Amino acid sequence: MPTILGQNQYGKAENRVVKITRDGDTHHIKDLNVSVALSGDLDDVHYNGSNANCLPTDTTKNTCFAFAKEYGIESAEQYGIHLARHFVDSQPSIHRARIRIEEYSWEHIGGSDSNAKFIGADEVKHSFVRKGQETRLAQITYDGEKFEVLSGLKDLTVMNSTNSEFWGYIKDKYTTLQEDYDRILATSLSTWWRHNWTSDEQRMPSWERSYEQAKKHILHAFVETYSLSLQQTLYQMGSRVINNRSEIDEIRFSAPNKHHFRQDLSPFGLDNEAKDGAVYYAADRPYGLIEATILRDGVEPKIPVDMTNL
Amino acid sequence: MPTILGQNQYGKAENRVVKITRDGDTHHIKDLNVSVALSGDLDDVHYNGSNANCLPTDTTKNTCFAFAKEYGIESAEQYGIHLARHFVDSQPSIHRARIRIEEYSWEHIGGSDSNAKFIGADEVKHSFVRKGQETRLAQITYDGEKFEVLSGLKDLTVMNSTNSEFWGYIKDKYTTLQEDYDRILATSLSTWWRHNWTSDEQRMPSWERSYEQAKKHILHAFVETYSLSLQQTLYQMGSRVINNRSEIDEIRFSAPNKHHFRQDLSPFGLDNEAKDGAVYYAADRPYGLIEATILRDGVEPKIPVDMTNL
Amino acid sequence: MPTILGQNQYGKAENRVVKITRDGDTHHIKDLNVSVALSGDLDDVHYNGSNANCLPTDTTKNTCFAFAKEYGIESAEQYGIHLARHFVDSQPSIHRARIRIEEYSWEHIGGSDSNAKFIGADEVKHSFVRKGQETRLAQITYDGEKFEVLSGLKDLTVMNSTNSEFWGYIKDKYTTLQEDYDRILATSLSTWWRHNWTSDEQRMPSWERSYEQAKKHILHAFVETYSLSLQQTLYQMGSRVINNRSEIDEIRFSAPNKHHFRQDLSPFGLDNEAKDGAVYYAADRPYGLIEATILRDGVEPKIPVDMTNL
Amino acid sequence: MPTILGQNQYGKAENRVVKITRDGDTHHIKDLNVSVALSGDLDDVHYNGSNANCLPTDTTKNTCFAFAKEYGIESAEQYGIHLARHFVDSQPSIHRARIRIEEYSWEHIGGSDSNAKFIGADEVKHSFVRKGQETRLAQITYDGEKFEVLSGLKDLTVMNSTNSEFWGYIKDKYTTLQEDYDRILATSLSTWWRHNWTSDEQRMPSWERSYEQAKKHILHAFVETYSLSLQQTLYQMGSRVINNRSEIDEIRFSAPNKHHFRQDLSPFGLDNEAKDGAVYYAADRPYGLIEATILRDGVEPKIPVDMTNL
Repeated sequence: MPTILGQNQYGKAENRVVKITRDGDTHHIKDLNVSVALSGDLDDVHYNGSNANCLPTDTTKNTCFAFAKEYGIESAEQYGIHLARHFVDSQPSIHRARIRIEEYSWEHIGGSDSNAKFIGADEVKHSFVRKGQETRLAQITYDGEKFEVLSGLKDLTVMNSTNSEFWGYIKDKYTTLQEDYDRILATSLSTWWRHNWTSDEQRMPSWERSYEQAKKHILHAFVETYSLSLQQTLYQMGSRVINNRSEIDEIRFSAPNKHHFRQDLSPFGLDNEAKDGAVYYAADRPYGLIEATILRDGVEPKIPVDMTNL
Repeated sequence: MPTILGQNQYGKAENRVVKITRDGDTHHIKDLNVSVALSGDLDDVHYNGSNANCLPTDTTKNTCFAFAKEYGIESAEQYGIHLARHFVDSQPSIHRARIRIEEYSWEHIGGSDSNAKFIGADEVKHSFVRKGQETRLAQITYDGEKFEVLSGLKDLTVMNSTNSEFWGYIKDKYTTLQEDYDRILATSLSTWWRHNWTSDEQRMPSWERSYEQAKKHILHAFVETYSLSLQQTLYQMGSRVINNRSEIDEIRFSAPNKHHFRQDLSPFGLDNEAKDGAVYYAADRPYGLIEATILRDGVEPKIPVDMTNL
Repeated sequence: MPTILGQNQYGKAENRVVKITRDGDTHHIKDLNVSVALSGDLDDVHYNGSNANCLPTDTTKNTCFAFAKEYGIESAEQYGIHLARHFVDSQPSIHRARIRIEEYSWEHIGGSDSNAKFIGADEVKHSFVRKGQETRLAQITYDGEKFEVLSGLKDLTVMNSTNSEFWGYIKDKYTTLQEDYDRILATSLSTWWRHNWTSDEQRMPSWERSYEQAKKHILHAFVETYSLSLQQTLYQMGSRVINNRSEIDEIRFSAPNKHHFRQDLSPFGLDNEAKDGAVYYAADRPYGLIEATILRDGVEPKIPVDMTNL
Repeated sequence: MPTILGQNQYGKAENRVVKITRDGDTHHIKDLNVSVALSGDLDDVHYNGSNANCLPTDTTKNTCFAFAKEYGIESAEQYGIHLARHFVDSQPSIHRARIRIEEYSWEHIGGSDSNAKFIGADEVKHSFVRKGQETRLAQITYDGEKFEVLSGLKDLTVMNSTNSEFWGYIKDKYTTLQEDYDRILATSLSTWWRHNWTSDEQRMPSWERSYEQAKKHILHAFVETYSLSLQQTLYQMGSRVINNRSEIDEIRFSAPNKHHFRQDLSPFGLDNEAKDGAVYYAADRPYGLIEATILRDGVEPKIPVDMTNL
C-alpha cells in the first residue's frame, strides 16, 4: 500500500450544553460550546469502514450532556478533564481525547449592568443578560497518562486612544507609511495559555480564579504599557501573566491591529490632530496581524502556531 | 415607455466613523456605523445615466466624517438629524434623506468591568474595552419639513431561567409539542421605537437619556413578567415603554425564541427536571420568531413591518 | 388602556427542509429554508398570555416537513402557496399567512461542473455539489382571498471589468472624488419581483421557468448595458424583466457597489491604467448602496422599501 | 529575565488583491485574499519596542499590490513563491516568510453558467459572475533555503443521497444512536495538501493543473466510494490524490458531517423511508467532525493538525 494513514481524530463538535443550577431562588448558568476529538486504534475505520473500534460521535454528544447533569460544571476546565478522562479510560480503542470548550458569560440583570441598577434584588435571581464581551476558551487533552490544559479567550476588543507610537522602522522601495507619534492602538485579542498542571499528583489550580487573574494581568499590561509597537504590548501582557501566575508556563497571542486611520479632513479646511481629539476611519481589511508566544524561561513551547489560525 | 421608476434611494452605507474627544486626560469615544440613503429628482440617472442631479456617494461619506469633526457627535440621533438636514437643505435635487446608525459602546477599563477594578484611576482615562452587549440603533428621516426619528437596539440577549410557561394552545393534526409549566424563556431582542419629535418647533428630547430609560423599561418588564407566552412579554415591554416615556409613541419588537430544550437524559437513568436545575440543549434553527408593534392609543403606526427583516 | 397592539405575527423561522426524490437511480434535491409568519385573532395572547387562539410555532414546523412529504416540492412558490393556504383555511383564528423561503441549489457532480466531466454518467445520479452561487428567494402571502407571490434572489455577485464610467455629478464643498472613464462595476445583487398571479381563477405561472427567465434577463441587461451609473444598470435590468415577462409587474433591487479601487502604484514607479489591465483593491466598507423599484406602468407598487434591509 | 520570547510572526493579513488582465477584448481575473507573516531577528521589537528590524506591515501590503502589477499572478502559488522569496532575500532581519492566499473564482457570464447560455460570445468577454463554490487555498513558506508549498480548498459542499451506511460501532452506556443502512452523507470539505517541490533545483509543477487534478480526484473518490464511515471516504479521497499525483506527498482533511436527519413523520401517519425518497432536517449543531492525514508511505507528516482549526 503506497499510502498510509497519519494523524486522525473525530468526535462531535459544537455541543451547546447549558446548565442551570438552582441555589434556592438564585439561579446560575454555565453556557458552553463543547467539541470532542478522539484518537486511537482507528486504522480499520479508515481503511475498510469497520466501525468496531468507533465510539459514535452521537455517543460523545450524549456523554457531554449526561456528565453536565451527573457531575455538574464547576469550571470548563474541570468538566473537560472529566470528559477527557472518561473517553480514554473507558474505551480500550481510544488513546487520546481532546476537549475544546467555548464559554459564554451571563450576568444577573441588575448586577453590574448599570442600566438595570434600578431593579430590586428579589426579582433578578433568575433573569440574565448575556455579557457579550470576550468568549472564554479551554482545551483539555489526555492520553491516559498526562493532561495538557490550555485556557484562553477570544474577541476581547480593547483600545488605547493615546500612548502609542510607531516609527524607526525599515524603509524600503515599497514603503509609503508615515511615522506616527500619537496613534490609536486597538486590537481584538485571541490568546491561549498553558497550565503546568498535568496529573492528579499535582494540586489542581482553581481554574476560575486563574482565568480571572490571567485576564486581569493582560488588561493591566495593556493599560500600563506606553507602546512603541503592538509586539511590545503583547510581550508585556505575556510576561506579566507568566511572572504573576506560577501555574502558567506559556502563553500565545494573536492580535489583529484594528486600524483606526485618522481621516484626512484638510480638503474641507479642517484640522484633525490626535492631540485635539480626532475623527478616525475604522478599517476592516487588510490589517496587521501580530502573533507571539511568551514562555517561562526553560520550559518547552507546546501551544501550536496555528491554534488561532489567521 | 411601458415601465416606470418607483421608489429609489442611494448613498454610502456603513461608514465607520469613530470620534475621540479629549477632556483633559480623560478621553471619550463615539463609535458609529453610518449609512446614508438619499432620494429626489433622480429619474435621469436611472433612465439615461446622467449624473447631473447626483451627489456622489463618496461625497456623502466625506460629509459624515467632516460633520463628526465640525459639529461633534453629541448623540447618534443629534448627529443624524444634522446630516439629514444638510443633504436636503443644501442640495436642490435631494428631497429626502434617511440616516441609519449603529452605535457600539465602549467602557473605560476599570470602570464597571469587574475584572479590572484593581487598576488605579489615573491609568484608565484613555483605555477602553468594547462592551459587546447590545448594538444601539438610530434612523433619522427628513423630507425638508418633518423629521422622523427612530431609536432602537439589536442583539440584546436575555434569559429568564424560570417563570415561563406555555400551554393551552391549539392542537391540530400536526401538533406534537408537549405543554410546559416551567420553561426557559430566552431571546435576542431587536427593537425600534418612534419618537414624536418631528421639528424644531418642539422641544428636542435628550436622546441619550431617552435611550437609557427605554432600555431600562424593556429589561424591567422582561424581569417582572411571569410569562405565559413570549407575545405577552413583548406586549408588557412595549406598553411599559409607551406608558413611561411620553416622547415615544410606537415600538416594534422582533424576538426570536432562542429555544433551550431540556435534554432527555432518561436513557441514562438521569432525571432532568427544571425544578432541580437542568441541562438544556441550546438550539440554533429553527426558532419561533415573534414580532409585534405596540402603540400609544390614537397614533398611526409608521414603523415598517420589514424593518427587522426576519 | 393607553396602549394598543398593532401589527403582529409569529411562526417558526428557518426550517431547514430537504427533500430527496428518487426517480429510479436518479435522485433530485430540493433544499429549502422555510420561515412561517402568521397573523389573526391574537390579541389575547399578547394582552394576557391566553394561547387558546395560538397554533404553536412547533406545529408550523411539523407542517412544513409533513407537507414536503405529502404533497412534494414542485417549486418553492407552489409549496409556499400550499402551506399559506393551509394555515389560513384550516385555522379560524389565523387570517393571514406569510411563507418566506430561501432555496439553495445543487447540481449533479459531473454535470455542468467542468472539473468533474471525467466521471461516467452512471455514478453521479446520487452525488451532488452545492452550487454556491445565488440563493433563490420566494415569499407567499395569503389572507384567505388573495395571494401575493414574490420571487427573487440574493448574493449573485457580478462584475463588468470595463464599459462603466462615472462623471458629471454634483460637486460640493465635501466632494473629493475624481471622475472615472473606465471603472470596474461590481455588485452583489439582491432583488425581489412580484407576480400578478393572485388566485386560482388565473392560470398559475411556471414558477421554475419564470425564475430562470427573470434571472437570464437580469444578467443579460447587466452584460449589455454600457453603464454611466449603477442606477442606470438597475433600471435596465428591471425594465428588461418587466418588458419580457408578462407575469411580473414589479421588481426591486438592492445593489451594493462593491468598490474595486485602482491601487496607486506611482510611488513605486509603476503605471496602473485600466486600459492595460490593472491591479485593484477590493474594499469592504463603506460602499455605495443603490436601491430602486421598477414597475409596469399603471400598477401600484407593493414591495416594501425595507425588504432588503440595508 | 524569567520570561522569554518564543515563536512570533507578523505581517499584513487579508490584502484583497484583484488583478485584471486584458487579452484584447477578453479580460481575465485573479481575485485573491493575501496574508503575509514574517519572522526573524525581531526580539528587540518585542522586548523594548525598537522597530529598527521591523519592515512595516503596511510595506508588506504595498508589496503584494506592486508585485501583482510588476510580475503578474500566474497562479496563487507562483505569486506567493515570488513574495516569500522577496521578503527573505531582500531583508537581512527577515528569515522566514509565510504567504497564505485564498482565491475566489469567477467565470465569464454565458460560459458554463447554464442560465446565461443565450448570450452571444462577443458580449461576455468582460462580464463575470462569481462562482461561489469552493475557495481555493495556498500557503507558501520560505526560510532562505527551502520552500514548503501547501495547496487546498475549503467550503466545497458535497452530498451522496444514498450509498452510505453506519453500523457496527461501539455501544456503551451513553449510546442511543440507531444503526442506519441508507443514510445521506454530506460534508463541507476543508483540505490542505503538500507538494514535494521545495526549491528551484526541482522542476516546478503546473500549479493550476495540479489543483484541478487534485480536486477532480477528491470528487471522483467521493462519488465512487460506497461509504461505511466518513473516515473511509476521506481515506479514499486522500489515497487517490497521493496515488495519482506524484507531486503531492501529504493531504489533510477536515470534514464536518453535515447531518441530514430523516424527520419522524409517523405521528402524522406518513412513512418517510429513504428508499422512497425522504424528507430530511438539515441540522446546524452539533455535528460530527472527522479529520485525517493521508501520506505517501515513507514521508514525514508536516501539515499541522490545527491548520483547519475546528
